[in-house]
Amino acid sequence: MSKKKLNVGLIGYQFMGKAHSNAYRQVGHFFDLPAEIGMHTICGRTPGPLKAAADQFGWANTETDWRKVVENPEIDIIDVSTPGNSHAEIAIAAAKAGKAVFCEKPIGNTLAEAKAMLEAVQAAKVPHAVFHNYRKAPAVALAKQLITDGRLGTIYHWRATYLQDWIADPNFPLVWRLQKEVAGSGTHGDINAHIIDLGRHLVGELAEVSGMLHTFIKKRPLAGEIDANLGAKASQEMGDVTVDDAAMFIARFKNGALGTFEASRFAVGRKNYNRFEINGSKGSLVFNLERMNELEFYDNATPEQTHGFTLIQATEGSHPYAGHYWPVAHIIGYEHTFTNLIADAVTNMVAGKRIEPDFVDGYENQRVLDAVERSSEAKGWVSL
Amino acid sequence: MSKKKLNVGLIGYQFMGKAHSNAYRQVGHFFDLPAEIGMHTICGRTPGPLKAAADQFGWANTETDWRKVVENPEIDIIDVSTPGNSHAEIAIAAAKAGKAVFCEKPIGNTLAEAKAMLEAVQAAKVPHAVFHNYRKAPAVALAKQLITDGRLGTIYHWRATYLQDWIADPNFPLVWRLQKEVAGSGTHGDINAHIIDLGRHLVGELAEVSGMLHTFIKKRPLAGEIDANLGAKASQEMGDVTVDDAAMFIARFKNGALGTFEASRFAVGRKNYNRFEINGSKGSLVFNLERMNELEFYDNATPEQTHGFTLIQATEGSHPYAGHYWPVAHIIGYEHTFTNLIADAVTNMVAGKRIEPDFVDGYENQRVLDAVERSSEAKGWVSL
Amino acid sequence: MSKKKLNVGLIGYQFMGKAHSNAYRQVGHFFDLPAEIGMHTICGRTPGPLKAAADQFGWANTETDWRKVVENPEIDIIDVSTPGNSHAEIAIAAAKAGKAVFCEKPIGNTLAEAKAMLEAVQAAKVPHAVFHNYRKAPAVALAKQLITDGRLGTIYHWRATYLQDWIADPNFPLVWRLQKEVAGSGTHGDINAHIIDLGRHLVGELAEVSGMLHTFIKKRPLAGEIDANLGAKASQEMGDVTVDDAAMFIARFKNGALGTFEASRFAVGRKNYNRFEINGSKGSLVFNLERMNELEFYDNATPEQTHGFTLIQATEGSHPYAGHYWPVAHIIGYEHTFTNLIADAVTNMVAGKRIEPDFVDGYENQRVLDAVERSSEAKGWVSL
Amino acid sequence: MSKKKLNVGLIGYQFMGKAHSNAYRQVGHFFDLPAEIGMHTICGRTPGPLKAAADQFGWANTETDWRKVVENPEIDIIDVSTPGNSHAEIAIAAAKAGKAVFCEKPIGNTLAEAKAMLEAVQAAKVPHAVFHNYRKAPAVALAKQLITDGRLGTIYHWRATYLQDWIADPNFPLVWRLQKEVAGSGTHGDINAHIIDLGRHLVGELAEVSGMLHTFIKKRPLAGEIDANLGAKASQEMGDVTVDDAAMFIARFKNGALGTFEASRFAVGRKNYNRFEINGSKGSLVFNLERMNELEFYDNATPEQTHGFTLIQATEGSHPYAGHYWPVAHIIGYEHTFTNLIADAVTNMVAGKRIEPDFVDGYENQRVLDAVERSSEAKGWVSL
Repeated sequence: MSKKKLNVGLIGYQFMGKAHSNAYRQVGHFFDLPAEIGMHTICGRTPGPLKAAADQFGWANTETDWRKVVENPEIDIIDVSTPGNSHAEIAIAAAKAGKAVFCEKPIGNTLAEAKAMLEAVQAAKVPHAVFHNYRKAPAVALAKQLITDGRLGTIYHWRATYLQDWIADPNFPLVWRLQKEVAGSGTHGDINAHIIDLGRHLVGELAEVSGMLHTFIKKRPLAGEIDANLGAKASQEMGDVTVDDAAMFIARFKNGALGTFEASRFAVGRKNYNRFEINGSKGSLVFNLERMNELEFYDNATPEQTHGFTLIQATEGSHPYAGHYWPVAHIIGYEHTFTNLIADAVTNMVAGKRIEPDFVDGYENQRVLDAVERSSEAKGWVSL
Repeated sequence: MSKKKLNVGLIGYQFMGKAHSNAYRQVGHFFDLPAEIGMHTICGRTPGPLKAAADQFGWANTETDWRKVVENPEIDIIDVSTPGNSHAEIAIAAAKAGKAVFCEKPIGNTLAEAKAMLEAVQAAKVPHAVFHNYRKAPAVALAKQLITDGRLGTIYHWRATYLQDWIADPNFPLVWRLQKEVAGSGTHGDINAHIIDLGRHLVGELAEVSGMLHTFIKKRPLAGEIDANLGAKASQEMGDVTVDDAAMFIARFKNGALGTFEASRFAVGRKNYNRFEINGSKGSLVFNLERMNELEFYDNATPEQTHGFTLIQATEGSHPYAGHYWPVAHIIGYEHTFTNLIADAVTNMVAGKRIEPDFVDGYENQRVLDAVERSSEAKGWVSL
Repeated sequence: MSKKKLNVGLIGYQFMGKAHSNAYRQVGHFFDLPAEIGMHTICGRTPGPLKAAADQFGWANTETDWRKVVENPEIDIIDVSTPGNSHAEIAIAAAKAGKAVFCEKPIGNTLAEAKAMLEAVQAAKVPHAVFHNYRKAPAVALAKQLITDGRLGTIYHWRATYLQDWIADPNFPLVWRLQKEVAGSGTHGDINAHIIDLGRHLVGELAEVSGMLHTFIKKRPLAGEIDANLGAKASQEMGDVTVDDAAMFIARFKNGALGTFEASRFAVGRKNYNRFEINGSKGSLVFNLERMNELEFYDNATPEQTHGFTLIQATEGSHPYAGHYWPVAHIIGYEHTFTNLIADAVTNMVAGKRIEPDFVDGYENQRVLDAVERSSEAKGWVSL
Repeated sequence: MSKKKLNVGLIGYQFMGKAHSNAYRQVGHFFDLPAEIGMHTICGRTPGPLKAAADQFGWANTETDWRKVVENPEIDIIDVSTPGNSHAEIAIAAAKAGKAVFCEKPIGNTLAEAKAMLEAVQAAKVPHAVFHNYRKAPAVALAKQLITDGRLGTIYHWRATYLQDWIADPNFPLVWRLQKEVAGSGTHGDINAHIIDLGRHLVGELAEVSGMLHTFIKKRPLAGEIDANLGAKASQEMGDVTVDDAAMFIARFKNGALGTFEASRFAVGRKNYNRFEINGSKGSLVFNLERMNELEFYDNATPEQTHGFTLIQATEGSHPYAGHYWPVAHIIGYEHTFTNLIADAVTNMVAGKRIEPDFVDGYENQRVLDAVERSSEAKGWVSL
């Protein structure tokens, strides 16, 4: 008996488009899914690069009008991988059209958008997912297991940084990610959102925050034509940077844990340093995305003679996701976090279960982003 | 104009079959190749698992008789991924049939086999490649670049270990990799061969060796049915382990460098620890496969105030292979070494250039393996 | 010609007393000082343990009344190593008696005390020093050099944590360090003070802070007799913990850099994890006291091919302080930071130069501690 | 009641003289010894520098004729810290004079010397010790404990390197350590001897070896006046390097373990990289002198979910030696290994127990050095 087929329409074909396409293409080769994935249509505004992307990434069709994709009865899942300013419109339309909606993070550029999106998918009773893909690294999933199993006891501290440096050069141009009207925010929504998600996932909901957002370089050369990844051509004319270069906050979680969060694109030398440390009464955990196959675990039950942080290679067949790939210590990479997320999403979708993370997570994340922004403006604590 | 298509016939569908299949499937999505890869036929002896493998890995056809694959005029490349005792027969037949031959390492189980295989592909003037895939990790390719650029100066030391522990349990059963008549040797041909290749690739040819091979556990439970990866079911009956558990040697390279090589499957706690260090008059390099996106470089030209080993993340767009994948520090994994190797092999094959590494490398590697075995038996140095 | 002799009177003989004694005893054997150090008198309240300490640490005389030490005309330097609640009284008396005053940190338990102490030494025109000893680790001094030389460019980020876990056990007793009336504060004055000093030293003065102090365990068993180090005997009776278990804040420096500071005694698994990272436009630095001989440096001027964090072993003869000890990579330890501080202090004292760090540093440090406390209470930002 | 006093006469005042002096001076301040150490006399040939050394290091008297020190009835312990070519004569004379003899390693420049020295101390029934100080690092002593407690099970592998680079520059002059008639050998006796001692101490006696010694730079500028540490002044005239620049061997231990040993002064970038790894059936250990406060331990009994190498900070009060110094993770350094050795030696000497390591260890070590040299010449295995 052949499997049900789920056809995907992907809106957006740049960095995230490439990553999502790879996941859809690969997932069935590593996971025994309850449905077959059809890479039906990829959608973008510029026909030439769009066709090239379709060929390169393995999509059957192209379409320049996202509304046609959303309305296409052959399509089951709409994947929203565009810049943040179009997420809400596309996702809401997709929900109304009865499609499952898998959306990049942050789900909207504002809390209002996020709320409307969540209401739309809930009203339409369609499956929904948000691409907080780092939950799906085996080492992070193992961290979650250990916490759920009580291995950390009462959690006292969450300490997270997401550090990059790709715009530290003042001559790096004003790409869309530096424009508030397109990107919504800077590091805050782009990478702080990731560590907020990890904090919520691993420790719990936040109660109150005190933060600051800051822009170091306030004017940059206008970008020429924007290229397929993050880069851009520099020009002589200058424009205003309207988003934050760095965003950080201290927080109290509802369960009493204390948290620090810091995101920056000005941490020279740090390329993709998404690191967290959790300290609990029974143990501690450390993760760093740049060594994403590893998890450090301190078990307070170990006798003093031999206690210390243990470097777990989260690549054993028994570790989450890892058994689907290669033997122990034959590592996987960044792209596999998306594959794992799609595997989970499709599995739960077919089973009629809640996908995790979903728009509820996306919305809660946005509530935190919003509270930190208000805290930064008000120069005081904001409750959630 | 459509690209030339190169159809592949893959012989073998276990661990290496899975890795090679993934590479053939993925390579065109990340590299702009001069030819399209056709995943034509996968071949194995047992129809049921073979069909499952074909479906999972993405092959169009199955075939239980490798001779039919070799003779199939639609097929351009024969990929030999069987255990070592069938490499020579298949590869020689494929060469005689005019096919390109891409063969797993070590190319044969004996030096005589390797020699016959090399002669066969040379006589048939067909393209040939051997899967010493670790050359193709970006960090290793960067190491090669730095050496070629003279950044290490005169090389004094090569120091390599390849450490695993998957058979350290004495009750681990007698799988095919522990039987000389199938595998040819134990750690020696399996993993020592990898660091020998890296040593030859990065430092140069060896002049003489003094080594020892050793078997710690001489009897093991007979394996039940062998599973798709390395595992097996244990039984009560015992059989003789006829290969080495550990193999190590000291060496002189022709260029005057000194080398140490050590491979073991009894290094408890080491899972896939393929590490090398090279010391030259102008600098040093360190690589460890378990952190395969990283390369440590010591530059002797740096002033004393700030000298030290620099942890390079070999993930920049300008680093070898890395630009085909993801932004900096969004790491790749084990599987990508095969993708890179196939990309190079197909590119060179279409261009009529020598593929690297090829059967010459496979043969030279086997000469070293053979010399070390003879040295171990004779308890003295053996010249190459 | 014999050197001038400077006699020291040490008030306090527990953990800091042991560390300071070692420094006075050793400094002349590694540094060619302009004066000889005389270990004249050690002072404490309990004669028996005091005599034992004198013998063990190498002091010529003992005295149970600190006032007699301060008034002793043979003594040149008063070292204040008692708990914080007696610093001000002793230091002010010593200054009035015309002695040089070397005081443990934080210099007082309140800002008012710190101010009075600073005024006292300035009024008396006596030399003064404060034991922010971590400035004197060779790796930290090298960091200072690199910053002074402009190797980091404009500093964007300071990120510091000082993490310990020695009171994470809720049954750990109520020792003096957990009592506000003795210790002034908990982690805040004890270890946050250290990273505040490092931040001031390496980046500059703070402009404003938003912080929180928190006590996880609010009642603990009363301590029995307090022992010579940090430990204590547990009893059944419970008492109130009146200091913070964790203290953290975000900050803006006057030069525009952003900072995060976090100190905790509840970071299970972290023993003495005093780590900072500084990101500037031209480079970055990382230090961790647990590997105090090392400094990581990222030089943004390095070409992309080989850029990365360089692990400098700050043990070369040309590195600060290191040349006084052992050959390269023959590491030194915690105790040597005190030795280096004393060497600098005595050298500058004899030369009539400002000692660094001194009571000005101590006072400025206390201003930050005070501002963070007020911020925590007011739940808002406090300017300095 | 006052303690017995043991007066020391130290022969030699350069690098080792400084290290030993520090240990004698400090040991009583950290250990409660059964005897008081008297730093009676330091001996060297050149009065000026000798007097300076005495003052700097804290010795009461100086003497230019070692025979007078050996014959001095006030002296109990003769410490032999001269270059290797005078060890035998001094040590034998000291033994005959009834003194305890504490000798630097390797104890002699030849096996014959070592044998004569061992016979002399045994005939004279005097206490004897050899300065294989790295046994006394807390982390190494902890390794020994874990092995003794059976935590490693059957040992399969010993893997050690001692890498330095201080003579990698071909213009580094021909100091005494590069002259066979003074130093006996190069890296072999200087640093290979250290890892041989660690291998013997931790794994057991060697059964057979196959090795090679090599000199990369055969002529060097003659040294000018030799300075107090390793350095020297370069001159124009060239002389022959008569010792090895690198020495390495593979080995079988009597208990069946396999070993690799490699020492080099041409490992550019490695400053004092004395690293070993031990793999046993139940666990593994890794130590590196450059991070000498740490020990990595892999416990094979840990469940797969959380197994990995644990980074133990061997600084707990319960760890060997560590409790004598500072609180946990307040690290100690190179010099403390000598202090610990002296503490053990004096304690055992007073108790009439065997000191460990002693001349038996020194002699067995020399037997291995000698066997490796003969193996290198004969190009074959040599049994011990």
